[in-house]
Amino acid sequence: MRIYLAGPDVFLPDAVAMGRRKTALCANYGHVGLYPLDSGIDIAAPDASLDIFRANQAMMDSADAVVANLTPFRGPSADAGTVYELGYMAGRGKLCLGYSNDPEIYADRVRKLNLTSPDTASFDLDGLAVEDFRHADNLMIVHALEDHGGPLIVPREAPADLWHDLTSFEDCLRMLNTMKGHAR
Amino acid sequence: MRIYLAGPDVFLPDAVAMGRRKTALCANYGHVGLYPLDSGIDIAAPDASLDIFRANQAMMDSADAVVANLTPFRGPSADAGTVYELGYMAGRGKLCLGYSNDPEIYADRVRKLNLTSPDTASFDLDGLAVEDFRHADNLMIVHALEDHGGPLIVPREAPADLWHDLTSFEDCLRMLNTMKGHAR
Repeated sequence: MRIYLAGPDVFLPDAVAMGRRKTALCANYGHVGLYPLDSGIDIAAPDASLDIFRANQAMMDSADAVVANLTPFRGPSADAGTVYELGYMAGRGKLCLGYSNDPEIYADRVRKLNLTSPDTASFDLDGLAVEDFRHADNLMIVHALEDHGGPLIVPREAPADLWHDLTSFEDCLRMLNTMKGHAR
Repeated sequence: MRIYLAGPDVFLPDAVAMGRRKTALCANYGHVGLYPLDSGIDIAAPDASLDIFRANQAMMDSADAVVANLTPFRGPSADAGTVYELGYMAGRGKLCLGYSNDPEIYADRVRKLNLTSPDTASFDLDGLAVEDFRHADNLMIVHALEDHGGPLIVPREAPADLWHDLTSFEDCLRMLNTMKGHAR
């Protein structure tokens, strides 16, 4: 299977090495990992940003599945680019898997980040309700995975290195292999 | 046209009234606005969260277009649920429009939210690079709109009421009407 490797991993200082680790794990499970950085876009080119979008979209179109790194990124939710890609793959009818290295509940994370109202944890600082179904992130993400692939994988405890631990990523590959033959 | 109204508007204390305002504006432009809260899910039911997902997905499947409220939500990027829905609609080949009531550049917002490293604004507190193509949000979101509908609409200055001002929403409807007959 061709697996699109969505995630903010591309922003890591060792992004290229991370891509190699992820594609090597994919190969171990009999798959081809497609890592966005491997498109070889020159990020200094004038249209780099559009080129990256097009290359990522073409890579997604060529993939059978996505494994998304949904670890919270600069706030209580997953990286926006990764979430967009998860939605795109679900819309295209591809198999969707995802993991987060932070097992905490979304509403609790919002509170810990001091984003809730001083009066009540049910609302944020802008007065908008904090969704609390005891999920790790927004319900659309959590149920999309269940409906279009397999449930979000989270570790029992956050690993020491939130951005480099691939235990839950590997669990996604293992889950994928129990689903082979799954057709939508 | 049937337009899915994606956005964190559903979390507003006056979420129902906001839905009425948005659907009324859609009607003014000759469209039918589909507002997630209108599915009438009982949020106290045991499977409420899954019911909401399924109702939203069915509503999206029944729509021709999405107008997404991409105003930054609890962090530097748009609401994760909304971004998922934008991706899903793009993947399904629907017409995608979106607006943000915050005209600021993503990288500047990350810095103002004190999420950048004390050493350099090019990296965040976790050491991950801050994408800076001078876009309002992640490049996947910005270019997805251009590729699947029309460019992200932002006001010149943030309106006084970030969560209730519908000027840019209405601009999306206006843009949609200049595109009629657009087919993917």
